[in-house]
Amino acid sequence: MIRRAASAVVMLCIGVQFLLADEGMYPLTQLLEIDLRAKGLTISAEALYNPQGTSLIDAIVNIGGCTGSFVSADGLILTNHHCAFPAVQAASTPALDYVTHGFLARKRGEEIRARGNTVRIIESYRDVSAEVLGVLADSMSPGERTRALAAKSKSLVAETETRTPGVRGEVAEMFAGKTYVLFVYTYLRDVRLVYVPPRGIGEFGGEEDNWMWPRHTGDFAFLRAYVGPDGSPADYAPENVPYHPKRWLRVQPQGVDENDAVFILGYPGRTYRHRTSHFLAYEENGRLPAVADLYEWQIATMLRMGAADRSIALKYDSRVKSLSNTSKNYRGKLQGLHRLHLVQRKQEEEKGMQAFLEADPTLQKRYGTMLREIADVYAAMTATAGTEVLLDNLRTSSTLLSQAFIATEGARELRKPDLQRESAYMERNIGRTRDGVRLALQNFHEPVDRALFEEVLRRLQALPETGRHPIVDSILTEIRGQGGIGPWLDDLYARATLQTPEAVFALMDGSPEDASRSTDPFVQLCRRLTPVYSTLREQRQDREGKLTRLHGDLVEVKQLYQKTTFIPDANSTMRMTFGRVRGYAPADATVYRPFTTLKGIIEKATGVPPFAPPERLIALYREKRFGRYAHPSLGMVPVALLYNLDTTGGNSGSPLLNAAGELVGVNFDRTFEATINDYAWSEEYSRSIAVDVRYVLWVTEFIGGAQEILRELGVQ
Amino acid sequence: MIRRAASAVVMLCIGVQFLLADEGMYPLTQLLEIDLRAKGLTISAEALYNPQGTSLIDAIVNIGGCTGSFVSADGLILTNHHCAFPAVQAASTPALDYVTHGFLARKRGEEIRARGNTVRIIESYRDVSAEVLGVLADSMSPGERTRALAAKSKSLVAETETRTPGVRGEVAEMFAGKTYVLFVYTYLRDVRLVYVPPRGIGEFGGEEDNWMWPRHTGDFAFLRAYVGPDGSPADYAPENVPYHPKRWLRVQPQGVDENDAVFILGYPGRTYRHRTSHFLAYEENGRLPAVADLYEWQIATMLRMGAADRSIALKYDSRVKSLSNTSKNYRGKLQGLHRLHLVQRKQEEEKGMQAFLEADPTLQKRYGTMLREIADVYAAMTATAGTEVLLDNLRTSSTLLSQAFIATEGARELRKPDLQRESAYMERNIGRTRDGVRLALQNFHEPVDRALFEEVLRRLQALPETGRHPIVDSILTEIRGQGGIGPWLDDLYARATLQTPEAVFALMDGSPEDASRSTDPFVQLCRRLTPVYSTLREQRQDREGKLTRLHGDLVEVKQLYQKTTFIPDANSTMRMTFGRVRGYAPADATVYRPFTTLKGIIEKATGVPPFAPPERLIALYREKRFGRYAHPSLGMVPVALLYNLDTTGGNSGSPLLNAAGELVGVNFDRTFEATINDYAWSEEYSRSIAVDVRYVLWVTEFIGGAQEILRELGVQ
Repeated sequence: MIRRAASAVVMLCIGVQFLLADEGMYPLTQLLEIDLRAKGLTISAEALYNPQGTSLIDAIVNIGGCTGSFVSADGLILTNHHCAFPAVQAASTPALDYVTHGFLARKRGEEIRARGNTVRIIESYRDVSAEVLGVLADSMSPGERTRALAAKSKSLVAETETRTPGVRGEVAEMFAGKTYVLFVYTYLRDVRLVYVPPRGIGEFGGEEDNWMWPRHTGDFAFLRAYVGPDGSPADYAPENVPYHPKRWLRVQPQGVDENDAVFILGYPGRTYRHRTSHFLAYEENGRLPAVADLYEWQIATMLRMGAADRSIALKYDSRVKSLSNTSKNYRGKLQGLHRLHLVQRKQEEEKGMQAFLEADPTLQKRYGTMLREIADVYAAMTATAGTEVLLDNLRTSSTLLSQAFIATEGARELRKPDLQRESAYMERNIGRTRDGVRLALQNFHEPVDRALFEEVLRRLQALPETGRHPIVDSILTEIRGQGGIGPWLDDLYARATLQTPEAVFALMDGSPEDASRSTDPFVQLCRRLTPVYSTLREQRQDREGKLTRLHGDLVEVKQLYQKTTFIPDANSTMRMTFGRVRGYAPADATVYRPFTTLKGIIEKATGVPPFAPPERLIALYREKRFGRYAHPSLGMVPVALLYNLDTTGGNSGSPLLNAAGELVGVNFDRTFEATINDYAWSEEYSRSIAVDVRYVLWVTEFIGGAQEILRELGVQ
Repeated sequence: MIRRAASAVVMLCIGVQFLLADEGMYPLTQLLEIDLRAKGLTISAEALYNPQGTSLIDAIVNIGGCTGSFVSADGLILTNHHCAFPAVQAASTPALDYVTHGFLARKRGEEIRARGNTVRIIESYRDVSAEVLGVLADSMSPGERTRALAAKSKSLVAETETRTPGVRGEVAEMFAGKTYVLFVYTYLRDVRLVYVPPRGIGEFGGEEDNWMWPRHTGDFAFLRAYVGPDGSPADYAPENVPYHPKRWLRVQPQGVDENDAVFILGYPGRTYRHRTSHFLAYEENGRLPAVADLYEWQIATMLRMGAADRSIALKYDSRVKSLSNTSKNYRGKLQGLHRLHLVQRKQEEEKGMQAFLEADPTLQKRYGTMLREIADVYAAMTATAGTEVLLDNLRTSSTLLSQAFIATEGARELRKPDLQRESAYMERNIGRTRDGVRLALQNFHEPVDRALFEEVLRRLQALPETGRHPIVDSILTEIRGQGGIGPWLDDLYARATLQTPEAVFALMDGSPEDASRSTDPFVQLCRRLTPVYSTLREQRQDREGKLTRLHGDLVEVKQLYQKTTFIPDANSTMRMTFGRVRGYAPADATVYRPFTTLKGIIEKATGVPPFAPPERLIALYREKRFGRYAHPSLGMVPVALLYNLDTTGGNSGSPLLNAAGELVGVNFDRTFEATINDYAWSEEYSRSIAVDVRYVLWVTEFIGGAQEILRELGVQ
């Protein structure tokens, strides 16, 4: 049950246009104002969202950055294969390869720990805009504004957590500098794997098909949330018992068809639709190409080095997936920015806006320089984008260097009072930080680590004069003096000591003085680089402070100029989006139909991953054993489907719901053209992709042989 | 007019199935037996093909390996941009860049020579199977059979050409070892450029879009055939006059629409539908991947070296296009072979055929070992495929080495009686061979030449022991002795003398003894390599002889086994194919519509070649200036269209004709899935692509401003 703690949040969203537009990721506070019937939905408003009782919302969870949904009374969760993947990878060894073969627990006792996963449930939320913004003073510098907002948010969270032990608070910025909401969540910390299909299904098509349609990925996995015997959240323990959610989704084995109304509840991560042309130009000409280029190099290197040794490939699998996912997304965005001329369109809009301001002396006085000030911030960011991408990657490219940073920062931060610490070292997060250290070192392989590190150094060396950083430059000069990067790295790795979590924790839990005396060469390097990152952080806080204020102004101006209202950009809080099952025309003379089928898997199958479905799937296809899961007009099991809903990253694993609110699919991706969603949405191009519930059930029944799951879902 | 000299040629083709099947490239002899009405065609049989008078056939020409058609009484020819491209390239310089900007002759006197092009017209043909096969004796070795067939063909051609001065004969093998037809052709040798659109239109999409749909290439060009003042074929001369063809095609500016019946007359080059699984396995596992891999390397190298210097890029443009065209075609074929399991399907068919033979003692005695013998030939070919691809490329990779071969072979061959010469050095061909030398040396650039040569040497060096050739090996050993490939090539190029056509012709026209005394290092290398190629040629004649006999047997067995008839594989002789304008589904959930439009050009346009349409095109699109060329339901100028006709290479430039035999497009490509046409045809996947006549006329009128051409076409 979600307690409705504030009667009107995000006031900016209310308006007539809002109720008509199909675009948009609507926050909880607006759900009751949508005309569900007009949208083709038959579910009642109360069943969808009922702050006074239970509703569908209570079945939706955040699981490790993805969305998931409860699908049984015993805490069974359906989400994406790719969301469960890091946990499956962590549980796998070359001998016990769940990644390749999948995993099925035949009974509760066989369910294994999904390391690194937590399940987050909303308890309540309230508008805290007045409290948060109350700490700002006109005299503050932009950096001071940023830090003041962060400090106030932290203290609001701390108050909440003190008042109600066991919950966790988070302050979400709805409109930068305007509206803030405090969400209160419960975290379930014992999560286990129940059924994960083989990789040949769950990752069919792999990176090649990622962000693409037609799609044939069986991107689903079943997990289960556990709690202590007393029913409260608990760390993993054998005696824990399945969690009983307040509400779970009914699974509809008949699925949906073309043009049916559907909706999604989930946690979309981030969109940038209210930003200006300057931001888009910075993305198009600065950040996106620099990141995509570096990541593509790193991916190629990890794949090449993993090709010879399956155990190395397993270690870097997750990182390759993550980088590929980002770089292809960025390539899609770059194509979209270019094709849709988004910068130019925004520039035209801004020209009109500026003329509007200049026509009114009062507005001109108050907002006249706003756009120019935003332009200045992004001009500076664009100039240093290449350097900043390399600096960000310098500390993360080598696992040993990133552990050195965690250890020394930890030693410093853990001495501070909890509220003053960097977020990762606060009591509430330190457990996950330690888990991260363990996982990172489990996946460490020196030759790969070294190759990635070396390339970032080489790129820093190759930067033009204007992009240089003096401290980094002096380090590079020293390296040249010691015979160049190769010999210098030989020495560094020969003397490295942080290859075990114990070594990292020993430093972290010691005094800052001990850490500063460490002779580990990565710790020494980290010490020299620390001022580089402090400066960078301050620069960013300064920009953020400026932009928070300017974007707050921008929202006000836009409202006056457009004489309409709009909804806030996605910010990882719960949203609803609705629309229809619908194909599209991605290009001239090309039509994408909204359902793929088993036939497409056979067409793509080469026997070589990522196009290597299990033999059993091919045999079932040949024997036409579709069970009761065939699509009526396609005469075959549908695999994935397309719809015009408004989603973004974080919506992965979201349940796709039919008009009555029954689960008919699991959202897992957008099309290549729809990567542009983060900047703009279009009825023509924006399509998201779910694995069809019929394929989920067919695989679970016919490939997994997991009758017990079908029974638990109540669909057998 | 085509005189019908034989009443029944290619008897194997007659049968009921033949008349029903839409598949097939029907030879001239069968045209009168097609039920045109049943195929949706309204043209009369006599208008299509009339051996006693003139017919559409008389408007069809072969132009430089492509097909073209007369479209005016004054010898105006419409063919593909890519067919005219080498001539446009030869006429271009960095200062006078017709490749980039296109070419338009405002009046006859401005029409410039299309170097290297001839226009070939059919005069007559007759069945010569009995005469050709009469020279074979059972006692002959396979190599002797090959040589005997070739010699008889040559003498038949010579007889014809002596009897009727000015014509040229060619013997076409319809079914290997079964049926041979002598075609008599007239060649027009003075061909000129009339209108060539800018490269941003004629080559829009370039290699990236080649073999693909949706397509937006304006792949057309207008040329004109000239003859001497007396009306007979003549070499280029200013006083020549336009040729007046017996028949020319009417251009239909309204085009066609989806599902309309269409047909094509043209010169498809080569198909292999009657070959066995062994041939397909050799292609799939031997030849195709070896060639594609080497070509891809060569393309990348030429592009890289041309990137810095536009004049180098111009020199190698044509070669890059040609290699890219082949390598992508091979990649498409490899995908098709794999996806359609063609080898396996043929194997199953052959298993049935073998069982059928073994069930009948007479057949078993006569044909029982046929399939095994075919298998043996291809097994040997597969084993040496990698080596042979490199040897073939060794003599062609370096222009200087290939000129050395031409010069020394020429010196030897030109001393022989004409009929005994290698084809390229016969009187009838020597002029074109000399033109080839001039063009090759005009496009010579030493650093590129050297890089291509070096790579083939390196690959030969890297061959496994089993693939080695003793002579090549001894050369490579010497190279190593002289400090390796680099220094050896330094010396070779420093002493080279064949950089001018004069130097090549001086050797060629001298005595073989002079040639053998030449100190040019490429000539010396060529002398050492000559035995390598002689052996290779003999091996190939031996294989061909065996296969000719075996494939003759195979045709007989197939007829007995399948109890049906079939039409011969394409062999560069005139064929007709018919069908419908129709899209297709290249993959699950994907539909390709049969027309592209200007909108697609705008979508693809990046401003960077090959996606850089002229500014004027973009402006016309924005202003919706479509003239009378808009497609009625698409509301815009259509650019290209798809149809299910059966085409292959050589059909480039073929007129696409509507039901009444009017020109509605210019065929220029197949889809990626249809590259498999050469091995198998399918209603589902085989689609060919034409530039729509409406786009041809729109570009000619609105971009080219060539009103005079529209007047000449009679469509103004």
